[in-house]
Amino acid sequence: MRVGIFGASGFTGGELIRILLRHQGVELTFLGALTQAGEPVVSAHPHLSEFKGRNFDNLDVEEALSKADFFFIALPHGRAVEVVPSLISAGKKVIDLTADFRLGNSSDYVNWYGFEHSRPDLLNQAVYGLTEIYREEIKKAQLVANPGCYPTAVILGLAPLLSSGVKIQNVSVVAVSGSSGAGRGRDEKVSFSILSENLIPYKVGFVHQHLPEILEQTQKLSGQSLNLSFCPIIGPYSRGILATIFLSLSESCKIFEIRALFQNFYQRADFIKVLKLGELPQLKSVRGTNLVKISVVEGKDNACYVIVCLDNLIKGAAGQAVQNMNLMENFPETEALELSPLYP
Amino acid sequence: MRVGIFGASGFTGGELIRILLRHQGVELTFLGALTQAGEPVVSAHPHLSEFKGRNFDNLDVEEALSKADFFFIALPHGRAVEVVPSLISAGKKVIDLTADFRLGNSSDYVNWYGFEHSRPDLLNQAVYGLTEIYREEIKKAQLVANPGCYPTAVILGLAPLLSSGVKIQNVSVVAVSGSSGAGRGRDEKVSFSILSENLIPYKVGFVHQHLPEILEQTQKLSGQSLNLSFCPIIGPYSRGILATIFLSLSESCKIFEIRALFQNFYQRADFIKVLKLGELPQLKSVRGTNLVKISVVEGKDNACYVIVCLDNLIKGAAGQAVQNMNLMENFPETEALELSPLYP
Amino acid sequence: MRVGIFGASGFTGGELIRILLRHQGVELTFLGALTQAGEPVVSAHPHLSEFKGRNFDNLDVEEALSKADFFFIALPHGRAVEVVPSLISAGKKVIDLTADFRLGNSSDYVNWYGFEHSRPDLLNQAVYGLTEIYREEIKKAQLVANPGCYPTAVILGLAPLLSSGVKIQNVSVVAVSGSSGAGRGRDEKVSFSILSENLIPYKVGFVHQHLPEILEQTQKLSGQSLNLSFCPIIGPYSRGILATIFLSLSESCKIFEIRALFQNFYQRADFIKVLKLGELPQLKSVRGTNLVKISVVEGKDNACYVIVCLDNLIKGAAGQAVQNMNLMENFPETEALELSPLYP
Amino acid sequence: MRVGIFGASGFTGGELIRILLRHQGVELTFLGALTQAGEPVVSAHPHLSEFKGRNFDNLDVEEALSKADFFFIALPHGRAVEVVPSLISAGKKVIDLTADFRLGNSSDYVNWYGFEHSRPDLLNQAVYGLTEIYREEIKKAQLVANPGCYPTAVILGLAPLLSSGVKIQNVSVVAVSGSSGAGRGRDEKVSFSILSENLIPYKVGFVHQHLPEILEQTQKLSGQSLNLSFCPIIGPYSRGILATIFLSLSESCKIFEIRALFQNFYQRADFIKVLKLGELPQLKSVRGTNLVKISVVEGKDNACYVIVCLDNLIKGAAGQAVQNMNLMENFPETEALELSPLYP
Repeated sequence: MRVGIFGASGFTGGELIRILLRHQGVELTFLGALTQAGEPVVSAHPHLSEFKGRNFDNLDVEEALSKADFFFIALPHGRAVEVVPSLISAGKKVIDLTADFRLGNSSDYVNWYGFEHSRPDLLNQAVYGLTEIYREEIKKAQLVANPGCYPTAVILGLAPLLSSGVKIQNVSVVAVSGSSGAGRGRDEKVSFSILSENLIPYKVGFVHQHLPEILEQTQKLSGQSLNLSFCPIIGPYSRGILATIFLSLSESCKIFEIRALFQNFYQRADFIKVLKLGELPQLKSVRGTNLVKISVVEGKDNACYVIVCLDNLIKGAAGQAVQNMNLMENFPETEALELSPLYP
Repeated sequence: MRVGIFGASGFTGGELIRILLRHQGVELTFLGALTQAGEPVVSAHPHLSEFKGRNFDNLDVEEALSKADFFFIALPHGRAVEVVPSLISAGKKVIDLTADFRLGNSSDYVNWYGFEHSRPDLLNQAVYGLTEIYREEIKKAQLVANPGCYPTAVILGLAPLLSSGVKIQNVSVVAVSGSSGAGRGRDEKVSFSILSENLIPYKVGFVHQHLPEILEQTQKLSGQSLNLSFCPIIGPYSRGILATIFLSLSESCKIFEIRALFQNFYQRADFIKVLKLGELPQLKSVRGTNLVKISVVEGKDNACYVIVCLDNLIKGAAGQAVQNMNLMENFPETEALELSPLYP
Repeated sequence: MRVGIFGASGFTGGELIRILLRHQGVELTFLGALTQAGEPVVSAHPHLSEFKGRNFDNLDVEEALSKADFFFIALPHGRAVEVVPSLISAGKKVIDLTADFRLGNSSDYVNWYGFEHSRPDLLNQAVYGLTEIYREEIKKAQLVANPGCYPTAVILGLAPLLSSGVKIQNVSVVAVSGSSGAGRGRDEKVSFSILSENLIPYKVGFVHQHLPEILEQTQKLSGQSLNLSFCPIIGPYSRGILATIFLSLSESCKIFEIRALFQNFYQRADFIKVLKLGELPQLKSVRGTNLVKISVVEGKDNACYVIVCLDNLIKGAAGQAVQNMNLMENFPETEALELSPLYP
Repeated sequence: MRVGIFGASGFTGGELIRILLRHQGVELTFLGALTQAGEPVVSAHPHLSEFKGRNFDNLDVEEALSKADFFFIALPHGRAVEVVPSLISAGKKVIDLTADFRLGNSSDYVNWYGFEHSRPDLLNQAVYGLTEIYREEIKKAQLVANPGCYPTAVILGLAPLLSSGVKIQNVSVVAVSGSSGAGRGRDEKVSFSILSENLIPYKVGFVHQHLPEILEQTQKLSGQSLNLSFCPIIGPYSRGILATIFLSLSESCKIFEIRALFQNFYQRADFIKVLKLGELPQLKSVRGTNLVKISVVEGKDNACYVIVCLDNLIKGAAGQAVQNMNLMENFPETEALELSPLYP
């Protein structure tokens, strides 16, 4: 299968390439880049020496259509909606890694992303690509909206409880993310001089743009809206999210029962590891892989913690996208994703 | 004033020396070390070149008594109780940075620290050294039990609410600490190979030895026991704690009112900076100082976050100890503590 | 093929397991550990979740002999010589990753490693496992002495010049290594608190134990002894060596000719990438792989730099060992070693 | 004394402020910023809470002249020459931390910095501000060109040898610098995602813009031009330079004699610490201070290493500038510079 990437020069683009190079069933035939079109792939991705001699393509839709049959969009938010409709009309399948098709309600784009959505009609057509929740819908989708990194962590950490009707009074998510979550942009917060030996909370409370995505999806799972507060923090490392989800439950629930809910919910999920009671995940043990590790721990007075960790560029972006492609194209779900973490 | 340190070779010992060297009113006349007695001070503290040529003293109480009049104890937990009674009997003043005199109930030592306390009679005599709360008692104390680093962050983040009678339903503290919190020990979790690019949750739930200290002190402030869950995490940096305290309140409370409570409570506290609404503290802006920065942020459904950061070796240990000494000896409270953070 | 590891719980042991798990032709049937025998493999290697439920074996030679046919030794220096002779006598093939069989002259063990070698007779039997230099000898070897990490970098950076008879007046190697080079030991230099934001030179001049290995091998290649000075530095990262080799040549030599020597020498070496003039390698672009990147740069007055980087745990240890096993057992040389670097 | 800073919002500007705040004899009356004029000082320097409520001034020369009497210039290279002449004409004293007045030969600006120098007549008037070498000239100067960070390390590491006529055949400098050396710019090399766990050599050989400065100054000291090759590397930490200077000498020289040369040369230099033979400096032990630590180590065949470390933002920039101001204004040379390193 001929595969193309719009936005191949960013960090997510680089991970898509790295993973797809391992895939037996695909060939990378279009590598479009925004500002680096015409430049060598290795200038953006010095680790991809297999691509020596190859340059990025222009972000030209006609050229893309002629060169590939399946597309990943890893452009900045707001730019996918400019190219996806043409790809869809031409009958191509698309996995969009931006936020442009994640939300059901077009007015949310104005409120949270600051732009008027030009194709609200396509929002319903898109399937939300959280693989472990929407596996069957993804198999049949033409357009998949790949989840954000924080939403992947938080929703996977809540889904078993929400689906089984556990009543949650309120939720606090404190999530630490590495610098690569900010992409290749030049935000000073993710410069080495500022971030080293630092922890930087940002957009705490009810202001982060991933919140509507989390709330919409959790509402779908439980039928109820969640009282969720969110505290994101940037930490001094390049990859990974560790989210601690504090849950105050409406009624007493034994921790081993909670763990059993998780265990059952994810029993057929190859990439989700529910740890034993007493075990805690460390970020580095999933680094570089599509794995998600989850622990549940008892808190005080009907409260508990769900601790979730994943690699934001893989399960939080490129890896989950390839996992979805595998479903859409009937490849084995784990194809190209059997990655081992680098430790230490 | 002649000052002595028991346990001068550890990280806290090093910070005590660094700070006391700036102090106009004291002279360091005894620097006792456990395993490094007789070795050069600069072998443990290569940055203290002022001490070239000076060696650590033996941990000998008689020698200590003859050499100094005021003592800091920075030994491992459980070792202070072996020397403090003799110092107290000899009429010396003592600030103990271990946990040995922090808890009021001697049975807590068996449960949380694993040793039988040999001098429970002294527990009541010790004043808990959280300066901003117990300033007056500290001025008159002979023995001060200097708080732990996590308790300093958490109690300072809760005190204004607890003292004013705000009803708190439950509390979740997620606190990230740097490697120096583990001291000079050889715990593999704080080796560079393991901790770099990692986040390591540990003792989550209700198992960390700092919990009884937090619960005892918060109960004193509010008259009620707190439903507190605790999630400590080790992060890839050497110094500092950033604690996010999630509070679910029993009744509605405006965030600007909450901030006003903090503002009032700490108006005469030189080292506590209550940030403006909308401002968030970053860890590096207090690094190397005795400062504590605190933000409050609104959450969902009568919830809020209190975000607190401090340097675990300074306000969380050596700095607060010197602040307490200044009170006990009638020096200006900020003497030797006007440190500027290193940034970037 | 049934493969066993002596010393499976260290960092090198972990990398051997991670790589061999990808190998089509081998099965890991013995995982002996020194102090962690009987404990779960995942307690030492939390990233190897494939091994859940499996424990380390005792370091018992009889048991090892019955369980496996090919052995890797990743014990501390001085411990390999205790087990290798029995394995060899039993007809097994062995790759020893310690220094115990690297040096030809048994007296060097007393001088540089501090122990009397008990089996000097085996030193000549061992083939030095620098794959790109001794490929043919390795194919036929029963016992391979896998090179140290610094020697691998330095000898690969000098071999093309030495083999072609270029006269070198003197050499200075400044090499920065990550913390994992010190292994799982508890050296304070590689604790996070000390190494973060630090650079620590150590054993500078003519004292590092890798020097006799480098000198013996370079003498073999050129027939002459080298005036080599060595400045090793520990840097604040977990993996990788970047060595800058400064060469003062006895006569004028054009830089493009020097590069051509490298290009020719390594033209059939899959893992050695000689960069174009003007290109410089960055450490992270080889991290997690068996690759070596080499640049040559012109200096002043018949001088030049050779800059070499590699991952100390892979090409500098476990990866090169597997590469050697592939040769010894007639597998494709790159089998299990087609690893892609994690970037960023 | 009223002191002004042009370029107060950068890292060097921040360090100048932090240090001058400790100075008994000066008041900061002008804080001009290029792009951040009008914004709060704490937005650029969140650690300088003393400046809460104060905003950066416009970069207006008239305003500056009216507000202050002594100036530091911490603008980008090429921008100092636009303001310095007016300040000098108005009789003010100036310390310029850019490269604009460091070189004696105006054509070097075209070759190495890419701009035509508009006031070559002032180049001779400027005194090169390497304090330990030009102390007497600095005392009488109106315009001081403060040295670059690499040149400070390298020249201090060579001066004792050059001044005493030791014949040096060739020199290789391998110097690792932290991210802050690149300033607040947005160079991707110093983003956390790229630099973490990395080492990035750049401008190796004879291309770094600090070379003409080093060569001009070393020629002045020895009367001869030096065969110097230079390998700069960016390392994963925020502050500090560790330079290893490899020297191949023309004739035999005992290492204790070399050390004696350094010892004598710097015997009255408060900030230069020549270590004992066998001792090696670590970067973190000078971090945050104006100190320079120097070791000499014997190499092979009339070679030796000089290892130098310093904090690039302090002795390599702001600290040395304040040291020079102290000389020019007859303050004690160490005033405001008695800083203790933060360790760990």
